[in-house]
Amino acid sequence: MRIYGDLNSGNCLKVKWVCDALALPYEWIAVDTRKAETRTPEFLALNPAGQVPVVVLDDGRPLAQSNAIIRYLGRDSDFAPRDPYLAAKMDEWLFWEQYSHEPYIAVCRYQMLYLGKPASARDPARVERGHAALALMDSHLAASPFLVGDRCSLADVALLAYTRVAPEGGFALDDYPAVRRWIAAAERALGLPAVPV
Amino acid sequence: MRIYGDLNSGNCLKVKWVCDALALPYEWIAVDTRKAETRTPEFLALNPAGQVPVVVLDDGRPLAQSNAIIRYLGRDSDFAPRDPYLAAKMDEWLFWEQYSHEPYIAVCRYQMLYLGKPASARDPARVERGHAALALMDSHLAASPFLVGDRCSLADVALLAYTRVAPEGGFALDDYPAVRRWIAAAERALGLPAVPV
Repeated sequence: MRIYGDLNSGNCLKVKWVCDALALPYEWIAVDTRKAETRTPEFLALNPAGQVPVVVLDDGRPLAQSNAIIRYLGRDSDFAPRDPYLAAKMDEWLFWEQYSHEPYIAVCRYQMLYLGKPASARDPARVERGHAALALMDSHLAASPFLVGDRCSLADVALLAYTRVAPEGGFALDDYPAVRRWIAAAERALGLPAVPV
Repeated sequence: MRIYGDLNSGNCLKVKWVCDALALPYEWIAVDTRKAETRTPEFLALNPAGQVPVVVLDDGRPLAQSNAIIRYLGRDSDFAPRDPYLAAKMDEWLFWEQYSHEPYIAVCRYQMLYLGKPASARDPARVERGHAALALMDSHLAASPFLVGDRCSLADVALLAYTRVAPEGGFALDDYPAVRRWIAAAERALGLPAVPV
């Protein structure tokens, strides 16, 4: 399997983490999104949306969208609940991540870390919604060790990607103690080195 | 099963269409998002994100996020491919819809249809990305009757919701002939009355 990705992208790290945790062999092909390497004809043939990550399976078939990829690769693992309702709650978090978390927290991080903008230049509406996402997670995680039940699932993988680096987007995590505790637990479950938050 | 929804919302219609097509019995509970009915303590207990649709299963357990709901309700139906790779391609479209289609086309429609803004007041970046989404779909559908293979899947249900009413958001479909053909085919597959596009 080949993974086309950028290690600066949380969306790409989700795929790497799942492969590493499940010991799935892969070849990592570094793609620099800031050099328009996702806009070449060869890349667009793999993913017309021009985004990383993309995986190309051993039979040559491509698959895009980080959460669709980890759902596919992890479908028969301990990261995917067997119970259909719990699997659906995992999906609820996966879709929520892409609609209500990533566009705020990951985009602010991108603007600060890669475009060099100060925190004060962030769109106030984006900042407000990012904090709303963190507050929702904190409230949920105050009563649950992981996002779905008491075991690390793909929902935690997906949300961990940009939540653990939220401070790089100007989102201090001091007011979200349950999120901080969960980050450490999810990192342990995935065998990742802890990041200071 | 109870469905909390707003018939003006394409995200809610997805759930209704799947239930109707599969003859799943439900009670529809109308929620007016513009009257802040999704912000009451009772509603937030069902979905802390304060969004419709939400379904409450017969055993009382809630589930939110339109694409997670239709994936759950349709998981054993002909709308969900059995093949794991095709199911993953369906997921790819579902996540793409929420990240790269809905925020542009549905939001422009909301601004025009419900806030009464003229098409000229739309954010040009939003318009450009909406057209990029339609162009990507048109290119794909020029070579495939449905989004995943030759059968209507949940990917088509999800994308149909806001694509068929894209003109209400100022997105004329004249330049997207494959999309227009696909809308008619998906409407037939779901037993919906055709909308003129």
